[in-house]
Amino acid sequence: MRVITTIKEMQNEVLKHKRLGQSIGFVPTMGFLHEGHLTLISKARKENDIVVLSIFVNPLQFGPKEDFSTYPRDFDRDCALAEGEKVDYLFYPSVDEMYPQGPSVKVVVQERTDVLCGKSRPGHFDGVATVITKLFHIISPEKAYFGKKDAQQVAVIEGLITDFNFPIQLIPVDIVREEDGLAKSSRNVNLSPEERKQAPVIYRSLENAKRAINDGENNPVVLTSLIKEMITGESNGQIDYVEILSYPQLRPLEKIDGSFIIAIAVKFSKVRLIDNIIIQ
Amino acid sequence: MRVITTIKEMQNEVLKHKRLGQSIGFVPTMGFLHEGHLTLISKARKENDIVVLSIFVNPLQFGPKEDFSTYPRDFDRDCALAEGEKVDYLFYPSVDEMYPQGPSVKVVVQERTDVLCGKSRPGHFDGVATVITKLFHIISPEKAYFGKKDAQQVAVIEGLITDFNFPIQLIPVDIVREEDGLAKSSRNVNLSPEERKQAPVIYRSLENAKRAINDGENNPVVLTSLIKEMITGESNGQIDYVEILSYPQLRPLEKIDGSFIIAIAVKFSKVRLIDNIIIQ
Repeated sequence: MRVITTIKEMQNEVLKHKRLGQSIGFVPTMGFLHEGHLTLISKARKENDIVVLSIFVNPLQFGPKEDFSTYPRDFDRDCALAEGEKVDYLFYPSVDEMYPQGPSVKVVVQERTDVLCGKSRPGHFDGVATVITKLFHIISPEKAYFGKKDAQQVAVIEGLITDFNFPIQLIPVDIVREEDGLAKSSRNVNLSPEERKQAPVIYRSLENAKRAINDGENNPVVLTSLIKEMITGESNGQIDYVEILSYPQLRPLEKIDGSFIIAIAVKFSKVRLIDNIIIQ
Repeated sequence: MRVITTIKEMQNEVLKHKRLGQSIGFVPTMGFLHEGHLTLISKARKENDIVVLSIFVNPLQFGPKEDFSTYPRDFDRDCALAEGEKVDYLFYPSVDEMYPQGPSVKVVVQERTDVLCGKSRPGHFDGVATVITKLFHIISPEKAYFGKKDAQQVAVIEGLITDFNFPIQLIPVDIVREEDGLAKSSRNVNLSPEERKQAPVIYRSLENAKRAINDGENNPVVLTSLIKEMITGESNGQIDYVEILSYPQLRPLEKIDGSFIIAIAVKFSKVRLIDNIIIQ
């Protein structure tokens, strides 16, 4: 595995592989890799000649009150994990390399942002779309891998690729779960033992809603209530949101139809958990 | 020459040529081709294996009071001219093909826009940068050709390519002039015979300023006055602006230094002419 820190060198390496007709799979991350990331990398490894992993904590996507400076970083550990997954290139630029003078242009995302987690993070997805645009131009992948856990991010990137006609295929990768259904997250360790026992109710409530839909329920208000009651009844978690939206457009639905997402955020004492299912 | 109207077919054709290792030169236009465009195409023809010309009148870059619907169009004539210049592909999409549902993302240009012509056209360069981003992803050229006549557009595209790390080389092409120095433009025919005789003073005033700089004058205020006096003294044109700015940053200068542009816009009875020189 080669670690590359400059844009120019990364673009030159990419060009070499393109000339050889080799396909490139790309996994963008902010580092501090966990099992979810490794699933993305392993899928990219299977489907491409060359795998590029990027680690870049992107200041543009953090709000003024958010934790850019304290966002967890562990480059040596990330390196070892990436090497273990047979990554070919680890692209690891500095903030100065990516934004030498503050960008004179940015991507603005006009839809899909004022719902779910985006509602409380104005500008967040502009920062995501801007850095992903840059990374796509630096890596020029055929395929880019994103986890469905952050389903809103996947929806925004889907819009970015479609509307800007990037010649890139988005590969959304399924959520990895514990045996009891809890979506894996590096944040789960911050649950108390009691909360850890309760947390799987989030996924159970999604499964329960899915059953209700299969049994004919198509009213989002009814389904949302079902979910809220179940989570409130079986845990101490505070519901941040339960939303049922068209997918990937993320628009409100009068009744269940077509492709849609059920997304949940629940706050426990020290950690906020998110989960979702997408139903076609 | 092949005329292509769908994005998908254009991207497929491009991919074929990429796989053969052929280089692609791209000339984006809004059609109604004139000698300036043909100079761009001819340069692209010399420097690339494959030449793609696009004709697309981009609604996003027209303001609500601007002339999108009456913008001149003559596809048959453009086709014949493009064929004459040995263009390989003419990409000619409809508005629906380019913007099927109104874009959920756009490029916003945060610098270089509130001066020169951009001052009176808010949002214009966002529209330009958005469509150029799409076209770059559709054509994937190694080189893209833009005329220096619209120097602000060149500066904005330069920022777009640099800040978004497009693996594309911008080729700015010199202004083509009549024998008397007047910058060529399809609008020159709208000058009265008297105005046509006067109009070359615009370029003479630029040349005169350049001489003054070579003789040691480095104060933009003095140079701007020189130009204004000369144009006002030798024509009936109304000066819209004379600006001296750093290039390509387009920032005001306390004194002449580094790379800069002197840009002029003058209104005659039926037509507004622009011209500029860039001095390194």
